[in-house]
Amino acid sequence: MSNQDDVIDELRRQVRELSDRWEILQLLASYGPAVDSGSAEAAAALWTEDGSYDTYPAPMAGRAAIAAMVNGERHQSYVHRGCGHLIGIPHIQLDGDTAVVTGYSQLVLRDREADGFRVWRTAANRWELVRTPQGWRVTRRINRLLDGSPESHELLAAAVRPGEA
Amino acid sequence: MSNQDDVIDELRRQVRELSDRWEILQLLASYGPAVDSGSAEAAAALWTEDGSYDTYPAPMAGRAAIAAMVNGERHQSYVHRGCGHLIGIPHIQLDGDTAVVTGYSQLVLRDREADGFRVWRTAANRWELVRTPQGWRVTRRINRLLDGSPESHELLAAAVRPGEA
Amino acid sequence: MSNQDDVIDELRRQVRELSDRWEILQLLASYGPAVDSGSAEAAAALWTEDGSYDTYPAPMAGRAAIAAMVNGERHQSYVHRGCGHLIGIPHIQLDGDTAVVTGYSQLVLRDREADGFRVWRTAANRWELVRTPQGWRVTRRINRLLDGSPESHELLAAAVRPGEA
Repeated sequence: MSNQDDVIDELRRQVRELSDRWEILQLLASYGPAVDSGSAEAAAALWTEDGSYDTYPAPMAGRAAIAAMVNGERHQSYVHRGCGHLIGIPHIQLDGDTAVVTGYSQLVLRDREADGFRVWRTAANRWELVRTPQGWRVTRRINRLLDGSPESHELLAAAVRPGEA
Repeated sequence: MSNQDDVIDELRRQVRELSDRWEILQLLASYGPAVDSGSAEAAAALWTEDGSYDTYPAPMAGRAAIAAMVNGERHQSYVHRGCGHLIGIPHIQLDGDTAVVTGYSQLVLRDREADGFRVWRTAANRWELVRTPQGWRVTRRINRLLDGSPESHELLAAAVRPGEA
Repeated sequence: MSNQDDVIDELRRQVRELSDRWEILQLLASYGPAVDSGSAEAAAALWTEDGSYDTYPAPMAGRAAIAAMVNGERHQSYVHRGCGHLIGIPHIQLDGDTAVVTGYSQLVLRDREADGFRVWRTAANRWELVRTPQGWRVTRRINRLLDGSPESHELLAAAVRPGEA
């Protein structure tokens, strides 16, 4: 039985990792629906209680700050005008109970006059995640506009440097 | 053996769910290639025989109506001009033999004069799916332009309301 | 035991396929971070040594040619201005140690004057992949602008033709 036990243990390890990847994708796929519908509590709940979001124009620390951003005047103006926060396919580096996701985000805004949408922001993102009893949560998200800055390039390069998975 | 049988049964259940998620992603990833190439029958076959597509400018019911839309004058003008129907990463709520996917879609059109592409539509989508003997199929797709309407917000909020997976 | 052995063998086969799909998604999700950060070697390493990339304005053959494109004047001007090479959700046809992925790519460029981003290219892609001892790699990528050309339509239609998975 010992060999079969080993096979089953290895299957369990693999299946757990595959489930983790889908749970992480689900977390990322929740961000847009939460913020684009103005669901402030749902958006904040994607982070840990003291999780942070380092972005333009000002970094946020803690769920209350993230919820306040969603409820704030600037974000609400996007929601009422029509906006989409689109998250790209994720590059996931899993390491047990933590993970780092690298990927793109876009903010498109309704442009009524042009009868279309305007791509206002395209950014590189680093999401640092942790497994909690309630599932995967964001401990830190860093968002850098793709404006040619060294910071945006370094954030992306870190995901594909040799030695990274 | 009983304990090992339980472990194997649980693995089978988990693997089936992970396979379902990939099959659903494949279904969504087939939509763009079908409609952007004018493959009317392939597009219609993503739905069940009586599946519906509630979208602008008029809702469609049944595969024949969906195929007719692809073959219609308006859609054919997009195909000949150059278009991309882009589907975002999916938020998937699986429940046995049915599932609900929430996510974004974009329609970009070739803009020859600007030597580029125009984001003409960005929309929120709710896809209701069912497992059939031929695989997962769409029973209903609802598409709402992100124009600030309560309907578009409600569609997105439903996916992230507490209690939803 | 024989029946249980069969069940375990089938689970291993399924888990291997699910792992393959995630590895392929990771490969695709590495492309943008590599080229948008100017990581020429990392970008080239996504291909096999003699892999090819058939795209505008000129096809490339071999890793050295792909690295040279990333280091070239045109691509470097995008990187310094700010660019995003966005890859859509993949349609994956797995066949043992090879796979074909069909999906969209977009190149968005920073537009400083408009304080936004311009969708410069939206294209259909066919990625031919092979399993190597170092993981999945690209043997051939074909990229066709969505400009209404028969080639772009045929590339997309091939993925959804009846009989395809």
